[in-house]
Amino acid sequence: MNEISTLQKARQEYKPKLAGVLVKGIKNLAIVKGNATESVRDKESIKEIFKNLYGAPVITFQEGKTNNSSKKNVGVILSGGQAPGGHNVIAGIFDALKEANLENKLYGFLGGPSGIIEGNYVELTSDIIDKYRNTGGFDIIGSGRTKLETPEQFEKSLNVCKSLNISAVVIIGGDDSNTNAALLGEWMKANNAGIQVIGCPKTIDGDLKNDMIEISFGFDTATKTYSELIGNIQRDANSAKKYWHFIKLMGRSATHVALECALRTRPNIALISEEIAEQNWSLKYITDYMTDIIVKRSAAGKNFGVALIPEGLIEFIPEMKAMIANLNDVLAEADAFEEFTMPEKFEYVSQHLEACNAQIFNSLPITIKHQLLMDRDPHGNVQVSRIDTEKLLIEMIELKLKEMKAEGRFKGKFSPLAHFFGYEGRCAAPSNFDADYCYNLGYNAVALIEFGLTGYLSSVRNLSKPAAEWIAGGVPLTMMMNMEKRHGEMKPVIQKALVKLDGPVFKELKENRDKWALEDCYLFPGAIQYFGPSEVCDITTKTLYLENKEKSLNLV
Amino acid sequence: MNEISTLQKARQEYKPKLAGVLVKGIKNLAIVKGNATESVRDKESIKEIFKNLYGAPVITFQEGKTNNSSKKNVGVILSGGQAPGGHNVIAGIFDALKEANLENKLYGFLGGPSGIIEGNYVELTSDIIDKYRNTGGFDIIGSGRTKLETPEQFEKSLNVCKSLNISAVVIIGGDDSNTNAALLGEWMKANNAGIQVIGCPKTIDGDLKNDMIEISFGFDTATKTYSELIGNIQRDANSAKKYWHFIKLMGRSATHVALECALRTRPNIALISEEIAEQNWSLKYITDYMTDIIVKRSAAGKNFGVALIPEGLIEFIPEMKAMIANLNDVLAEADAFEEFTMPEKFEYVSQHLEACNAQIFNSLPITIKHQLLMDRDPHGNVQVSRIDTEKLLIEMIELKLKEMKAEGRFKGKFSPLAHFFGYEGRCAAPSNFDADYCYNLGYNAVALIEFGLTGYLSSVRNLSKPAAEWIAGGVPLTMMMNMEKRHGEMKPVIQKALVKLDGPVFKELKENRDKWALEDCYLFPGAIQYFGPSEVCDITTKTLYLENKEKSLNLV
Repeated sequence: MNEISTLQKARQEYKPKLAGVLVKGIKNLAIVKGNATESVRDKESIKEIFKNLYGAPVITFQEGKTNNSSKKNVGVILSGGQAPGGHNVIAGIFDALKEANLENKLYGFLGGPSGIIEGNYVELTSDIIDKYRNTGGFDIIGSGRTKLETPEQFEKSLNVCKSLNISAVVIIGGDDSNTNAALLGEWMKANNAGIQVIGCPKTIDGDLKNDMIEISFGFDTATKTYSELIGNIQRDANSAKKYWHFIKLMGRSATHVALECALRTRPNIALISEEIAEQNWSLKYITDYMTDIIVKRSAAGKNFGVALIPEGLIEFIPEMKAMIANLNDVLAEADAFEEFTMPEKFEYVSQHLEACNAQIFNSLPITIKHQLLMDRDPHGNVQVSRIDTEKLLIEMIELKLKEMKAEGRFKGKFSPLAHFFGYEGRCAAPSNFDADYCYNLGYNAVALIEFGLTGYLSSVRNLSKPAAEWIAGGVPLTMMMNMEKRHGEMKPVIQKALVKLDGPVFKELKENRDKWALEDCYLFPGAIQYFGPSEVCDITTKTLYLENKEKSLNLV
Repeated sequence: MNEISTLQKARQEYKPKLAGVLVKGIKNLAIVKGNATESVRDKESIKEIFKNLYGAPVITFQEGKTNNSSKKNVGVILSGGQAPGGHNVIAGIFDALKEANLENKLYGFLGGPSGIIEGNYVELTSDIIDKYRNTGGFDIIGSGRTKLETPEQFEKSLNVCKSLNISAVVIIGGDDSNTNAALLGEWMKANNAGIQVIGCPKTIDGDLKNDMIEISFGFDTATKTYSELIGNIQRDANSAKKYWHFIKLMGRSATHVALECALRTRPNIALISEEIAEQNWSLKYITDYMTDIIVKRSAAGKNFGVALIPEGLIEFIPEMKAMIANLNDVLAEADAFEEFTMPEKFEYVSQHLEACNAQIFNSLPITIKHQLLMDRDPHGNVQVSRIDTEKLLIEMIELKLKEMKAEGRFKGKFSPLAHFFGYEGRCAAPSNFDADYCYNLGYNAVALIEFGLTGYLSSVRNLSKPAAEWIAGGVPLTMMMNMEKRHGEMKPVIQKALVKLDGPVFKELKENRDKWALEDCYLFPGAIQYFGPSEVCDITTKTLYLENKEKSLNLV
């Protein structure tokens, strides 16, 4: 990869803006410690598991004078799905390390957490780092999904660190990866290994978020990229006036991505999984809700529109969740099921499911019934994430419209097109915001290391203000944890932030969606800009803006 | 649509750059007439159909003094699929008209060519125009696909024009729409109707191109938008290192879009339909070609990659084309075919197709066989455009790899993901190039009208140079025509430009593709930029650059 695009060339020159407190340099910091902290829930269990890390104070940096920094080597890991800005976190770590002591070294573990276990690494030099500044992707060292959680893995990691003289590891990841960072940090401390562990909050899903973490990195760039495409499609829908576009958006379970995109583009429909779960909407109710909008628009001469569908929807529909659980049980007990023909399978399932679940199963389009019975994981369970939710909804709506047409209640046309946006945004080149934010997260991680801290998440806050006013510090990982059931076992995990139905972001959608449904209020955000007017290039998400507006109001 | 995005707000201020010769204003022009022209082929037939228009000279503008412009009303039509920049063509027409005479009026016909037939129109005032400057989409007046070709339609159009005192019509469209513009212009002239007709070259497909038309508008923006997404996906592939992305790209039949995107992004595979047709590649050959690259990459530890698939591929595979023609005949003669079960249908088709075609049909994955027999148009014909080519190739490759795995010739993993990009780019906000080019096309169309010309395509050339050096003028529509069979009848049509296999653009791909297949030479073009350095914001396509480099070489 020697040749690079002209944009990449121009972006290499971009210098990320540092938080006011960090701008004086890594050697001019002092720490302010808050009070001892508690986990968000399940305090006793979390304390029991994290005997050494639990209760640490929140850290905030201020200007000061650091003692001379001793020479040290640091390792860095990219963990889980890609998010725009990961390379800038690493660049921030590198620059801060070299600023602290020119002899410091940064090692990148290759292919995710397995790199530290297996000792696959590369020394990151300025030659390498410079090529990746302000670029998207995780290709500088690759990523992976290995879970760091067993003492054997920790032991191996320690040996690798020892061999490289590494005294601190930075794990860049989402909620699960940072939970693992805490487990690794706890083990290292319990074993007096002398290895610090610091996490950085990454995920385009936007669900690693709390009072101390305003936003996870990558969310800004990914949602802006999806919004560009949604806006373009809305222009197309509004020009051709003949298609309904059903757009599924990546974002495992929480609906932050679809909600942010909805506020940026104002589509006719945006489903929010958290609302569906809370209101106990059935698949039929969702179908009716969407069909109603389609029919009303059609009556106004508009046989077109745009609907946003969150990727995790199915698992938030209570009746679907129950039916699938029941289906898994039925399939587990079925003898020689694979030898049945498809109609026999449908018949069998329909007879063995509980009555209410059988009714739901039978109401599904045939393609979806196929998918439910064919795409099963190695344990024989239905793979919910493989269900084409956008196509399921299209088929349900088509059935409903056919009924209504027969009854003379629908006279229009319905020509649906399905899209799925995910991979298009995970590795986009970071927006100015993500380029800045990520660089600060990395730089700040080194500041935490310099003060000997471990089990912390790098935290940069006050992000709706200009970088000069950003606050830098650290949050104890244990503070964000609770116990949850995973694969049948209670485990400590960082609490996932779902969309708050009483929060200002959802409220903005709720107050406007009826108008957006019928009138055409489409916004066309266009492509991410790097060089233009500040209001075009530097403003971050509507989600962050609205959440912080609320905070300010609360203070009044 | 009162609120607009911050980018749209900033872009409203953009002033498109005019060609050097147009910059002095619509009143300071003179025309230079070339020699009488001939059609590219079928001269006698074209001359017979276009008695009044045939043989007109190529027009080039130079600085001069126009006589005082008489007051006039002009009508404009957007025809066919959307392309970025259509609104700027209209803005260019509007500004030039008002510059010529403040009392001039511009009427927009609504919903495409049907607007002029049915008399649906709106007067375009500066209030309306200003809202749409430098925006994507055709929503200012909408578009449509009605074909203007019968005397009845022309008669009605004339009456509508008379009622609005319109003396010139500008049709913004692709090859078919401009063929219709010529037919309308011919009829108006033959009937001494006093209505001039001027066309503008639009299509993201890039196939409306010849010596006088270097590029159709929208191609630049659409291919840049697709290339942004392809680049992002390549970053993702190269980071996650576990998926093969099969990306189908819009572009009816010619492969200019996929070729341009390939040069901008350097994927591992880019299929070019024109090459497949010329080399008489079979579906099996294509499958083997792709599988070979997949297996070689896998052997090098790379179970990932990106392949670009042109939308029109199937119809360029000679054996598929023949099989589908045969299948259409078989289905036309089948009695009560719809009452058969699917296995019976397969059996019937397999027995009634010619042996070689039956063999091809039987080699197809079952989902594709389903699609071939189910998605038929009102005439009962197979709908080739509905076939998911990217999924067909994935399934063929999976079968081949399974075979190879059983024989121990493939040990890797193949996890494919399918994408289709089309609607994402057709209505993107125009790049600086398209914003400028389109504005010039519209402005220049008025210049042609001012000189009393009809049956011309607005032509702005020398586009690889800065706007100051652009050449403006007109090309007789008849010059670009030949006779082709359409729905069983010979008709005059503008010759479609396919990818030239001996041209410099395809050559660039051919010389590099083996390297790109196995090494990772991915380019990441990123999002379209409007405000940054000129080499990032103003350079147009690789296709135009390479085609003009060649032209320069020929002169030496």
